[in-house]
Amino acid sequence: MRTTRFGVIGGGAVGGLYGCLLAKAGFDVHFLLRSDAEHVRRHGWKVETPSGDFEIRDVNVHVSADTMPPCDVTVVALKTTQNCMLQDLLPGPTSQGGRVLVLQNGLDVENDAAEIVGAERVMGGCCFLCSNKVGPGHIRHLDHGRILLGDYCHAQEKVSGQLAAVCDDLVQAGIDAKFVADLNAARWKKLIWNIPFNGLSVVLNASTQQLMESQDSYELARSLMIEVYQAANACGSTISEQVIQTTLDVTRDMVPYDSSMRLDYLNQRPMEIEAILGSPIRRAQACGSDMPRVEMLYRELLFLDRKAKRSQAASKDD
Amino acid sequence: MRTTRFGVIGGGAVGGLYGCLLAKAGFDVHFLLRSDAEHVRRHGWKVETPSGDFEIRDVNVHVSADTMPPCDVTVVALKTTQNCMLQDLLPGPTSQGGRVLVLQNGLDVENDAAEIVGAERVMGGCCFLCSNKVGPGHIRHLDHGRILLGDYCHAQEKVSGQLAAVCDDLVQAGIDAKFVADLNAARWKKLIWNIPFNGLSVVLNASTQQLMESQDSYELARSLMIEVYQAANACGSTISEQVIQTTLDVTRDMVPYDSSMRLDYLNQRPMEIEAILGSPIRRAQACGSDMPRVEMLYRELLFLDRKAKRSQAASKDD
Repeated sequence: MRTTRFGVIGGGAVGGLYGCLLAKAGFDVHFLLRSDAEHVRRHGWKVETPSGDFEIRDVNVHVSADTMPPCDVTVVALKTTQNCMLQDLLPGPTSQGGRVLVLQNGLDVENDAAEIVGAERVMGGCCFLCSNKVGPGHIRHLDHGRILLGDYCHAQEKVSGQLAAVCDDLVQAGIDAKFVADLNAARWKKLIWNIPFNGLSVVLNASTQQLMESQDSYELARSLMIEVYQAANACGSTISEQVIQTTLDVTRDMVPYDSSMRLDYLNQRPMEIEAILGSPIRRAQACGSDMPRVEMLYRELLFLDRKAKRSQAASKDD
Repeated sequence: MRTTRFGVIGGGAVGGLYGCLLAKAGFDVHFLLRSDAEHVRRHGWKVETPSGDFEIRDVNVHVSADTMPPCDVTVVALKTTQNCMLQDLLPGPTSQGGRVLVLQNGLDVENDAAEIVGAERVMGGCCFLCSNKVGPGHIRHLDHGRILLGDYCHAQEKVSGQLAAVCDDLVQAGIDAKFVADLNAARWKKLIWNIPFNGLSVVLNASTQQLMESQDSYELARSLMIEVYQAANACGSTISEQVIQTTLDVTRDMVPYDSSMRLDYLNQRPMEIEAILGSPIRRAQACGSDMPRVEMLYRELLFLDRKAKRSQAASKDD
């Protein structure tokens, strides 16, 4: 057994995959689960990866944060739409001074954890992976998998020793982890993909592949990317313009993959509209940068989200 | 019988309504129809209006432009997506020097007629009406009805005598017609409604009422209107900013009404994307004015249009 103890809050495509890779490598991993808890307790995790499948048995499953032991690193792998629950979930596993690693999409997603445990104990990670939960306790990792890790409070190109240690643990678990001095720059780079492809896949009811194949949506995605790139630089995160083309090229070569926002929409779950679009828009505005197309996409998504919620509420009333 | 002879090309919600009002007032009206020809020949037109219903019997119905007599005014009331047919349809009824009145949505929609009969013989009209064709030969006029008429070649605030005469005929038929010196300004004013409410109703799959009731789509519509207003002024059509709020207020008080583009999309007909969005975008670009949100809406519509066409083609192949 390796020495670092990990808590994993959330058993979706991200928490399930990385938690299982850590457990497989011999780390002491404690999962806080909801709907999958009973299934995973009985049958363990089943993980399919491009390099082979594996199972994890005798999993430490918790249904309440109260039973979790103090952890060295508590991984937040909930949807950002559930971050309001963190005030109840984080105090337990972080009670002995452990750190929090926020593996979520979007910008400013570490703020909630930072308010609870203190900014200096918070790290963030940007995951570049195609992974789906295909059933209870069943993860299918399709492609990619890199995590870029950064301190929430980063100071002039320096990386904390704790961050380097966590990165080292992840690498030992076979995860393609790297640490970066500027977490925000990594998050903005990821937004260059997330904003157009999550947003348009919902508004245009299309897969990533369909969006790449049509000249209209390709140009539209590109124009959104340019706005995000310009906003990132206006906000002090230096990103090369080349990232836009590279992101498009990677997307073209990607396995057919539905964005998480599209899956959420199709499955009538809340979409991460605020983390992925609202927060970047507000940050850009504060830095004097305008993103008219991104803002339009944001409003289109809010309209669709509220329409879906009204329709769900109406069908419950029937 | 009044003296002016009208040809009406197209028997939809616009051509049907105005053609019938002219016929009711005693003008000699010749309709060029396609799908409704046999029905109208046998049963005449049925028109419902807010001020009472009426029928027109013994209609002059043509299925080919070759049988149409020379007309004083040939009204083009086709969808702009069918303008390629005008080269076959206009020469007959305009053979004795008659004029053409283009009652279509969008910008630069008179160009096709002007190429065929000469710019000086072309007039345009902007219709502000809620009217639907609800069945063969059956028009339901719901609300509004004003036509703003203008010469295609307008010269410094002057209106041609022919335009004034046509306007007079329309007024005698009980139509709320007015002539304006700047047709383009009228068209831009109408685009302030058409661009947001036609476009968003398709992309967000929503009625005008739903778009007005949600704060997100209301703000989105308003931001699109501001772009159109700014482009109009950049292109030399002086429009007051007050038009934006007035248009929103009128829309709020409008009867529940589906935009023509939404009806076209839902009924798998081609949408007037080029006339309503493409032409204004190109005109604005030529005048150095950028409409990023309108351009985004344009690309979203093109994507949806092509997806629908592919899906129709695929279902035909089955």
